[in-house]
Amino acid sequence: MGLEQHFPIWDKLTPHEQALLLSAAILRKAPKGTLLHSGSADCVGLFVMSSGQLRAFILSDEGRELTLYRLFERDVCLFSASCLLQSVQFDIIIEAEKDSELWIIPSDVYKKLMEHSVEISNFTNELMALRFSEVMWLIEQVMWKSFDKRLAAFLLDESILNGDSTLHITHEKIASHMGTAREVVTRMLRYFQSEDMLALSRGTIKLTNQRRLRELAE
Amino acid sequence: MGLEQHFPIWDKLTPHEQALLLSAAILRKAPKGTLLHSGSADCVGLFVMSSGQLRAFILSDEGRELTLYRLFERDVCLFSASCLLQSVQFDIIIEAEKDSELWIIPSDVYKKLMEHSVEISNFTNELMALRFSEVMWLIEQVMWKSFDKRLAAFLLDESILNGDSTLHITHEKIASHMGTAREVVTRMLRYFQSEDMLALSRGTIKLTNQRRLRELAE
Repeated sequence: MGLEQHFPIWDKLTPHEQALLLSAAILRKAPKGTLLHSGSADCVGLFVMSSGQLRAFILSDEGRELTLYRLFERDVCLFSASCLLQSVQFDIIIEAEKDSELWIIPSDVYKKLMEHSVEISNFTNELMALRFSEVMWLIEQVMWKSFDKRLAAFLLDESILNGDSTLHITHEKIASHMGTAREVVTRMLRYFQSEDMLALSRGTIKLTNQRRLRELAE
Repeated sequence: MGLEQHFPIWDKLTPHEQALLLSAAILRKAPKGTLLHSGSADCVGLFVMSSGQLRAFILSDEGRELTLYRLFERDVCLFSASCLLQSVQFDIIIEAEKDSELWIIPSDVYKKLMEHSVEISNFTNELMALRFSEVMWLIEQVMWKSFDKRLAAFLLDESILNGDSTLHITHEKIASHMGTAREVVTRMLRYFQSEDMLALSRGTIKLTNQRRLRELAE
C-alpha cells in the first residue's frame, strides 16, 4: 500500500496536490532505535507512518526524558516539520521504538500546500489539536495522579502494545518514559512485586495480576 | 479602537470576511472574576481581547487548579471555541482575572471562515501552536523544576504583571495557579521569608529581595 492509502485526507486533495505529494514523498526505513528528529532546529518534514512505532519525547537539561505520545500506522507526525509554524517554540525528539517505515513529506513542499489549500491547512489544525489533547492528558496525569497509578497504567499499556504480559524493558527505560529517576521506578516495581502484582527478573517484568494493576490504575 | 485594530490578521482578510466578522462580533465587558468559558461542552466563540486579563486553567477531579496561560490585549483565545476542532479533547476553563473587555466571534461564524479561508485556517494553526508552546513550557516546569524555583518565578511574574512589588494574593490563589495545595505554598513562602526574600502579612506578600528571588528562579 502506498501513500494514497496512508495519508488521512487523500480523497479531499486535488489531483495536482496528490501528484505533488507523491513525487515529493520519500519512503524511509527506520530500524528500531533510529533518531528521526531532534529539536526545533531539525525540520526534515512530516512523517506519514506506514508501519512500526515512533516515540515523541522531551529531554530535560539533566538528560531526563518524558514520553509525550506514540505514533503508529497511518499517524502523521507534524512536529518533525515544526518550522512550518513560527509559533512552535519547543523541542521534541522522535525515535523509532520499533522497526518502522514511513514517508517523509519535505517541509517546504508541505508548507506550500498548506499556504494554498484550506483542506490541508485545516487538516494540520486537527493534527495539532490531536497532539495537544495527548499532551493535556499527560499534564493532568503528572500533576494529579500519584506515581503508583501512573506506573500501573504504563505497564498495562506496554503489555497491550506488545501483546505480551511479560515486558522486556529496563527500569531505566521506564524512567525515561515517565520523566523520573530509575531508583523511583525500581522502588515502586519492588513494591508491586511484594503485593504479587508482578514478578521481576533480569530484564523482564511479568504482569502476574493484571486485574489488580488495572484497579490501581483506575 | 475596534476589532479591526485588535484582530491580528485583519489586513489579510477580504472585505467580505471583514464585514462578516464586524457584523457577528459582540463586544462584552467581563468584570474581574467572570467565568467566561467552562470546558469543552461550552463553545461560545473566539475571544479577541480588547483590554484586561484572562486566565486559562484546568481543574482536577478534586477541585485543584493549574494555570495554563494568560491572555492580554490583542490576544485571541481559541479554546473558548474548542468545538471548531473535533480533535480537542480536553476541558479548559477561562475566567477574567482583571476587569476585561473582549469581542466574541461566534463559533459558527468563525468555523465558516476557517473552512473557506486559507489565511484564517493558517492563522488558527499559529494560534494553537502558540498555546501549545506555552503548555509545553509548563510541562517542563512541573516535571523538572523544583517547587521553590517555580514559586520564585511565579512571584516575580506576578509582580511584573501588576507593576507592584507587593502582591495582593492569597496562598490559596497561588496554590490554584500552580496546581498544588495551599499548605505547600504557605510552607515555601515562610521559608522564603526566613531567607529574607519577602515579607508576609495578612493578604499581601512584599518581595523585599527580588534579586535573590531571580537567582533562585534561574
